[in-house]
Parts: sequence; structure tokens; C-alpha cells
Amino acid sequence: MRKSIATVSLSGSLSEKLTAIATAGFDGVEIFENDLLAGPLSPEEIRLRCADLGLSIDLYQPFRDFEAVPGDRLARNLRRAERKFDVMERLGADLLLVCSSVAPEAVDDDVLAAEHLRLLAERAERHGIRIAYEALAWGRHVSTYDHAWRIVELAGHPALGTCLDSFHILSRGSDPKGIADIPGEKIFFLQLADAPLMAMDVLQWSRHYRCFPGQGGFDVAGLVAAAVRAGYTGPLSLEVFNDVFRQAGAASTAVDALRSLLLLEESAGLSAPPAPAVPSGFAFAELTAADPEPLRGVLGALGFGRTGRHTSKPVELWEQGEARILLNTGAGDRRQGPALAAIGVETSDPDRAAQRAEAMLAPVVPRRRARGDAPLDAVAAPDGTELFFCRTDRSDLPSWTGDFTGVPQHEAAEPAGIGRIDHIALTQPWHQFDEASLFYRGVLGLEADDSLDLADTYGLRRSRAVATADGGVRIALNVAPAPGDDDARLQHIALATDDIIATARRVRARGAGLLPIPVNYYDDLDARYELDPHILATLAELGILYDRDESGEFFHCYTATVGRVFFELVQRTGGYRGYGAQNAAVRLAAQHAHQHAV
Amino acid sequence: MRKSIATVSLSGSLSEKLTAIATAGFDGVEIFENDLLAGPLSPEEIRLRCADLGLSIDLYQPFRDFEAVPGDRLARNLRRAERKFDVMERLGADLLLVCSSVAPEAVDDDVLAAEHLRLLAERAERHGIRIAYEALAWGRHVSTYDHAWRIVELAGHPALGTCLDSFHILSRGSDPKGIADIPGEKIFFLQLADAPLMAMDVLQWSRHYRCFPGQGGFDVAGLVAAAVRAGYTGPLSLEVFNDVFRQAGAASTAVDALRSLLLLEESAGLSAPPAPAVPSGFAFAELTAADPEPLRGVLGALGFGRTGRHTSKPVELWEQGEARILLNTGAGDRRQGPALAAIGVETSDPDRAAQRAEAMLAPVVPRRRARGDAPLDAVAAPDGTELFFCRTDRSDLPSWTGDFTGVPQHEAAEPAGIGRIDHIALTQPWHQFDEASLFYRGVLGLEADDSLDLADTYGLRRSRAVATADGGVRIALNVAPAPGDDDARLQHIALATDDIIATARRVRARGAGLLPIPVNYYDDLDARYELDPHILATLAELGILYDRDESGEFFHCYTATVGRVFFELVQRTGGYRGYGAQNAAVRLAAQHAHQHAV
Repeated sequence: MRKSIATVSLSGSLSEKLTAIATAGFDGVEIFENDLLAGPLSPEEIRLRCADLGLSIDLYQPFRDFEAVPGDRLARNLRRAERKFDVMERLGADLLLVCSSVAPEAVDDDVLAAEHLRLLAERAERHGIRIAYEALAWGRHVSTYDHAWRIVELAGHPALGTCLDSFHILSRGSDPKGIADIPGEKIFFLQLADAPLMAMDVLQWSRHYRCFPGQGGFDVAGLVAAAVRAGYTGPLSLEVFNDVFRQAGAASTAVDALRSLLLLEESAGLSAPPAPAVPSGFAFAELTAADPEPLRGVLGALGFGRTGRHTSKPVELWEQGEARILLNTGAGDRRQGPALAAIGVETSDPDRAAQRAEAMLAPVVPRRRARGDAPLDAVAAPDGTELFFCRTDRSDLPSWTGDFTGVPQHEAAEPAGIGRIDHIALTQPWHQFDEASLFYRGVLGLEADDSLDLADTYGLRRSRAVATADGGVRIALNVAPAPGDDDARLQHIALATDDIIATARRVRARGAGLLPIPVNYYDDLDARYELDPHILATLAELGILYDRDESGEFFHCYTATVGRVFFELVQRTGGYRGYGAQNAAVRLAAQHAHQHAV
Repeated sequence: MRKSIATVSLSGSLSEKLTAIATAGFDGVEIFENDLLAGPLSPEEIRLRCADLGLSIDLYQPFRDFEAVPGDRLARNLRRAERKFDVMERLGADLLLVCSSVAPEAVDDDVLAAEHLRLLAERAERHGIRIAYEALAWGRHVSTYDHAWRIVELAGHPALGTCLDSFHILSRGSDPKGIADIPGEKIFFLQLADAPLMAMDVLQWSRHYRCFPGQGGFDVAGLVAAAVRAGYTGPLSLEVFNDVFRQAGAASTAVDALRSLLLLEESAGLSAPPAPAVPSGFAFAELTAADPEPLRGVLGALGFGRTGRHTSKPVELWEQGEARILLNTGAGDRRQGPALAAIGVETSDPDRAAQRAEAMLAPVVPRRRARGDAPLDAVAAPDGTELFFCRTDRSDLPSWTGDFTGVPQHEAAEPAGIGRIDHIALTQPWHQFDEASLFYRGVLGLEADDSLDLADTYGLRRSRAVATADGGVRIALNVAPAPGDDDARLQHIALATDDIIATARRVRARGAGLLPIPVNYYDDLDARYELDPHILATLAELGILYDRDESGEFFHCYTATVGRVFFELVQRTGGYRGYGAQNAAVRLAAQHAHQHAV
């Protein structure tokens, strides 16, 4: 289906918005009136600009507080409408959104509303314009889509139809089943927005917290499917009011928006892009370091051995069990120190994974490849992290590990019991948090957990994990309390062990400091969980944090931070599925204290 | 009354919080458990630190999910409590907050709850500890203060009392009148928080949006008065969970917090600080400019004449009607250009104004005064703007204008019809917005309007005006969408004229550009208001914006921005009280467009 977006969904001037919308690949736009009023472009210039960019103007909006008013007011409202028809003719827009009235003078009279809307449609028709009447969830007398439709039906004019808006319908808990009762050709327009499920005033909810489909809690796909079944053939059009998108760069928001529609079409059964090749685990994590020595020290202490060097690039391979770390010494920001630059995921079908990524608008990262290097596709995640689709050491395909040649045996360290990468935590730029989780869901087929607030010493951090059903790949997405620190985003790699106490002891014995955790924490652990005193003492000695859920236990501890990177050791028992969020405040405070102490 | 604050209300480590709390002048603290758990200080060290700082530990909190549980759980909960009594003994804290249970296993049985709380109180008493039982607004079975009190009464133990929390009581709309039924000595503690009136889930509201008394919409003073009438003699203690305060500097938040309690005491009739000397108008606005030429040009074009030079400082006085601008050429940030540094307000009693400011914790600005200069007191507002209390040209006191000597007559320009300063708009640092409005209300006795969201091209800006009842002093406080741009905060001076068209024409004729406003805006104005076509054309020609309310009209236009400063020309007719917020989006977009064009 054609894809459109309201200009209000993005930040910037109207010119900036239109460029971003066209560049992302949308077919059309809704021109939000304030964007026209506030800008220097005349309606004719906007029309030309859209034509140049290949964008149709699918809707002009909103026209408010029109219908069911006392007599003298009607004439003034019709005059007001005529002025807007003039603007629309100049714009070349032929569909006007009319929202159900919120005006105090509006009368609760469907017949009167229908009569007025019919008059409006007659006037509109003379200009070649049609009217799409929509129920605002907070409309004074008309607040549900079926009520708006009854009025449209009553008016019975060919230039009058209805506009369905997923936010207005789903925020009120209306059942979209009734959409089947509306003839498809009378659904003039379909506006789409999702929102997190929140118990709050619906107007505030709508104005600040709307998000793109798939980023909230509504079944937008079900609503779209219902509209299509009813015969709707117009565009899928996003209309999102969101405090974060209002600030974020228009270009990236537009891509995020279009990706949400592609996933929505797929969920609603309206398209069939290449299915995701859900990864089975992490193939590697790549760290960059202009000065690699501190990281080599930590990796060695963690029990990793340097098992290979890349044949054509300054990259080292460090391995322990199935955990692999690439150390790229030819890149990296000298000022900020080591950083996590890339993730490799293990997939049975790298080609399909790459096709899926491309279909989901993931930008392909241009690779410099030496002759003989294994083909390795990468795309960039919203935060710039590169994502590689790998097959490691399978007989039927060349393995990326073949690009590494072995180093002398004595460089392999004594392993410390680490078996694999448990999860990777990526701090997202403030404006990319919702985009990131949708990206990983769309591109890798991961599933998203609930969003959490973690209490940091200097603010609340939102956190949301995306993972495969079997936990083979887990990525924790975190975001700082506010924009501004985007350059120094911390990332960490959590390494799984089956015996965290033995692993932590070995790591410490080799001189890598583990983050000290306050004694007070262990007093509280005792109060809450009545742990065995010996185990409690050992946890305290090693700075191991503890959590428990209904199906298992979680033990975890942390190394010091090097540049923007640190490591976590984790042990899961039973079916524990979380990440120790309970302990985040204590860990974050300990990291702050440690940084100040160093 | 003694004044206290919960450590959770501030950002930072426990050490940082305690220092900020003591420095601001609080008498005591509530130790929030997570602050203790996450920090390296032992309970004994915290006790010592508080003693050194002169802070009593008034409460340890919270203890959760204790009462009305099945038998096996009770023993475990009592064990958990004993561990906390141990911590409290080490801390030297003798009052524990117990929140009504939210646990799924809790039973709806007041007799059982009372029995369990009595057992807890018996245990506590052996440690010299008392229990304050509080109803959480979202408690599973106990969610109102009168219900919590009935259970406490039923338990009938001297070491068990109740804690009243203004948020939990007022967010549920409970009537505080029933507090009169609780014997004062059984109100063991009083926690205070305000909140903006919002229709949202009470738990989310509480965790993110609490604010200090006077910053929200609750009648906290009425509740305090009721508790005091009932015989409560303990501390007034703030407990605020707020996303902004969690990030803001602890030192300034602590001052803001204590100021809110001082105002609260006054409102509740519990104290009588010097009354505010409500100002009658602006005496002057002071601009700083390392390079004063651009500002001199704008002031000249606006019709200001340079009427004086300070006898001992590089400061020029520019006047037109009752509008006075000081141009300080000896200060200012060369990189950011001109800025607004100070405001003088006209007051009948500068001494009392200064005493009031000091009583409300406004930091006094040290002045360098030459012999013979008029005494002029200044304090610093939260954003650093200096605030002077002036009497201009009255016979009974020396006027600050006497410090300026006249300059040759020919430097006086042709006036352009400006009569006075209408208002001053100050962009606040992101974390100081609520503090600022409380500051101006407390120090100057201004009244606050509602908080508004203005749609800027690159995000939403909150805005709130504070003003005297007669509009003699109006200050519009704005805040950018997010922290980060605090250094480049724009400020502006709005100048009143009785004939904005004539004034704008003269200003333009003298070569000062006025901000161009898009033609589309005027098409919409026509659609909305049906203005006289000639007037409309003139407004469009001059870039004058228009607004209307039930009692009058508002015309306004803008100069270009110089450094961090611009000027607005305004004309009010009838009783229009606003600031043209309706037009803010158009104005802000025009300013962005103009800046990019320049």
C-alpha cells in the first residue's frame, strides 16, 4: 500500500521535513497546517517542492470545531472553511481532515452535525475537495469512530467520508471490529499511531506519547487489517505527536517511521518481505582501541587467549569457549578510549539475514575487503553499531575466522570458565531509543521486553531488552536520562560462566579489579533473601550481585571501565530471564564512586 | 517547625546529598534506604557525617509489604524487620516508615494488619524504635490515610503511629479534614510533596512528577495546617520523586526545597517572614555587551536615547518614556555576544524587598560600589539574572539614576512611542524551571500562570509567566526542550507601545529589521478572525502577530536577535492578559529561518 506521514511527526522546518520524508522513501505526506503557517514557502511552492520530491499531498489537516453549532456561527465556520479550500487548491491537496468539535458551543445533535457536514461537503465538492470526518478521542460530543461514521452516513454526501485514526480508536478501547460495517470507499483516510499503554488523560497521552506502530502497546496491525478487509485502498499514513521525535533529526526519524510501516504491513499480512533469519547466538563483539594495551590486560585476566590475527587488518581475535572478542587496534577514538564498534550474530543464513536487513531499511556498511577475505555483510544499527551476519566454522560456507591466522600457542591464557557472550548492553543516543528496539525486532526478529526505569545516581535511565525466544542473543538497550551525553555512551559485554565464584576468583587473581559493591547491599540481601551466610560472605568478598525471579537465580559482577567499555560476568541458574535490573541502582552508584576514586 | 528532606529528593551520592541538605539549612533528613545500600558509607559513618553536618536522622524509609500476610510469611517479614532495626541502631535512627502493603499475598483484614503491626511495634520498641505506618495511594488494601489510622488505633501500641503524606492523601482527592480526628501525638511523621494536577496513573504520577510544595496544584499548606491543629509537632519533611530533580545539581535543588518549605510555613500561617514588597513595574533591564555597537544601533532605532553614563562604571543609560535599558560595556561574553544580565524592579520599599529576598534564601550579589553611588541591593535569581530593588526618582530616597550623568542632548533619539517595559522573557536552565517560578513568587510576591507547552520547530518549550496582579511586572519563564543548551539561553525584552503600527514603522524606517512573518500566517488570521483587510495588510507588511482573548487584543512583533537578546514590541488593548502564546510556533519558526538566512 502507499505510505504517507504527517509533517507534524518530524522536527524541523517544512523544507527539512519534506526532504527527510522523500529521502526515506515515503510516497506521500499529510500537510499539517501549522507547518504551512509557520514557514516561508507559499502553498504553490510547497506543491512544487512535493512534486519535485515525488511526494503526493494526501491530506491537509486539521480543520477544527466546525459542525453542530448555532446558526450565526455556521456562516463564520463556512467562511473559515472556504479560506482553507483556497489554500488547498493552491497546494493541490484534495482531502481535508475535519476533527469532531471540542468547542463549548457545539450542540449534541447528530442530525445537525450531519446537516452541517453535508453543507461543508457541498462547498468542498465545488473545489474538487473531499472531507474526511474523524472522531477525536476527546471530542465534545463525538468521540468514537462508529459515532463519526453514523453522522457521515446520515449526511449521505459523496464528498464526505470518514477518517479512521488508530490512536483515537484504540486509546478509548473501542473495538475495531465495527470497521467492517463501514463501506471501504467511505473510509477516506487511515491515520496510524501507536502509544505505550498508560493510564493518563487521553489528550496528554496523544499529544506527547504517540509513537510509531510497533513501538507501543496497541494492536495497530489488527486495525489496519480490519480497514483493508472493509475495502480501504488509500495510504497507510502516520500521524505521531511525540516529544522525542519533535527534537530528533528528521532524517533518521523518517527512516524509523517508514520501517514501522513496513513491519506493520508484514504483521497485517499485507506484504511478505524476506523473513528474518533469527540468530542463534553471538559470533563476536568487536572493540576498537587506539591504545589496545589496557583491553589486552583485561581480556587476558578474564581468561581470553589471543588466538588469531587478521590477515589484512590490524585486528586480533581473542577467544574463550564460544565467546569471541575482536580487538581492532587500527581504529578508535583516542580521547574517549576503547569502544564497542560491532557485533557479529550467528545465523544459519547470512544472505537471507542481509536481505531482510535491507528490506527493513538498515543501511549497508561499505566494507573494504582484501582478496580472499570471507564475505561478511554488515549493516549499521541506529546508534552506529555495526551488525554482521556470520556463520562460524560450518563446513558448507567459508567462516570469517578463516581470515585470522593463528598466533603462537603461549599467548593463549588459562581460561577462567567463560563459555559464551550472555548479552551485550548498548547505551543508545537519547533520541534513538524507541527506534533501536524496533530496528532489532525488525531486522533480527528479536522480541522486546517491557521498558524499565533504572534509578541512576544522577537521573533515571530507561532500559529495554530485545532477545531471541531461547535467549541465544540478548541485547540490553539503555538510554541516559537526557540528551547531551551521546558521545560518551557506555557499552558492555556480559560473559556467561557456569561458576561465577570460581571465574571471579581467577579473574581477580590475575589482577583485574572487580567493581567493589558496598557492604550495606549485602546486609539488605540477607534481609530479603536469607541466603546461606557463607555464600553471602563470598558474594560480598567478590562484589557479586544477586537477583531471583520465579524460575531461577542470577549472579553478576563487573570489571572496571576502560574507555567506554566494561565487562560483566553473569551466571544464570534455572530459567532466570532478566538482567538484574533490581541491582542497577547499586551497580551504577558503585561505578560512579569507582570512577571518582580512580 | 523543624525542616527535613528525604535523600531520594536530590541527585548524587549520599555524601553529596547530605552536604547539599546541610548547606541549604535543613535541620534533618530522611535516609532513603537505596541511598544507604548503594553507597560506601557504613551506617555508623552516615551517623557521624550527619552529626558533623548538624543534621538529625528523622526517619529511615521505606519498609514495604509487611502487614496482613499469611502465617509463614509473617516470621520472615519480622526477621527482615529485625535486620532493618539493626541498621537503624547503627544509624542512630529511631523512626521507621512502614508503607501499606502492595504485595499480592496481603490479606484484606484490618484486624490482622493491626495485629501484625502491633507485633512489629513491640519488636521495634525493644530497639528504642518507633513505627510510622503510612497508606500508599496505591496500597493493595489500605490506600487512604484514615484507613491507615484506624488500623494504627486498633493496634493500640505506643511505638506505633501514623505517617501522613500529602501526595498520597491529596492525589486520591481525600479530604484532609479527617486529620483533626487523629491525636497529634499519634501523627509520628508528616511527609510533604506537591504535584501538578494530572489525570494519570497515581503510581507513575508519584514516581516521576512530584514537586516541592507551591510548584504543583495541591493545597499542601491546608494539609499542614490541619496536621498542626491536630497537634503534630514533628518536622515538615519533603519527599519528592521527580525526574528533573534526579538530574539537577543537589545544592541548588536543596535550596529550592527549603525555600518551598519556608513559603509553605508562611502560607499555613505558621511563620511570618517579612512580607513581599510587591513591585509596581520595571525600573530597568541591564544588557551586557563586550561589543556594544550592534545593541546601540538597535536601541537607537527603537527610539531610545542615551541619557546618561554611570559615574564610576562603563554603563550607559538609555531611556524612552518609562522604559530604561542599561548597557554595560564592561562585561559580557565576547563569544556569545550581548546578554540580559540584570533586572531592576520598582518598589516602594527596597529595604523590605531585600529582607524578604534574604528570608527566601535568595543569594545576595556582592556589589562593588564607588563612594557616593546610591545603595542598590541585588540578589541572584536561579538562572543567575541579578535582581535589583529600586526606587526611581522619588523625593524621599536617593535614586539609582543619580549615579548617571547626562550626555549631550543630541544623543537623545526621536522616540518611537515606547512607554515602558511590558514584560521580560527569560529562558531558564532546563533543571531550574520550577525553581524559578517559585523563586519569583516567593521573593517578589508575583503570581504564576499555568504552565504551557509551545511548539518550537525543534521541540516543545515549556513556558510559564509570573506577574503582579496589575500586570506592572510580568516575567515570562521559558525553558528549552531538553538540557544541553543552557549556555546559549535567549532572553528578550518586550516594550509596550500604544500604537504598534506607528512604532513599527518608525523602527523600520530607522533601519532596524523586524522579523518577517510568513504570508501564510495572515491567510490563517483572516480565516480565523475576519480582520479588516487594511489592518491585516498592514500587520503582514510589518510582521505584526495578532492574538485575542475574551477581554482584549494583543499585537506584537520582534527585532532581529543580537547575541542572546532580542526585543519585542507589544500593544495590548482591553484587558488582554497573555503573551501571544498562540503565535509562539510561528514566531519561533521565523526566528529559526531568519537565523539560518543571516
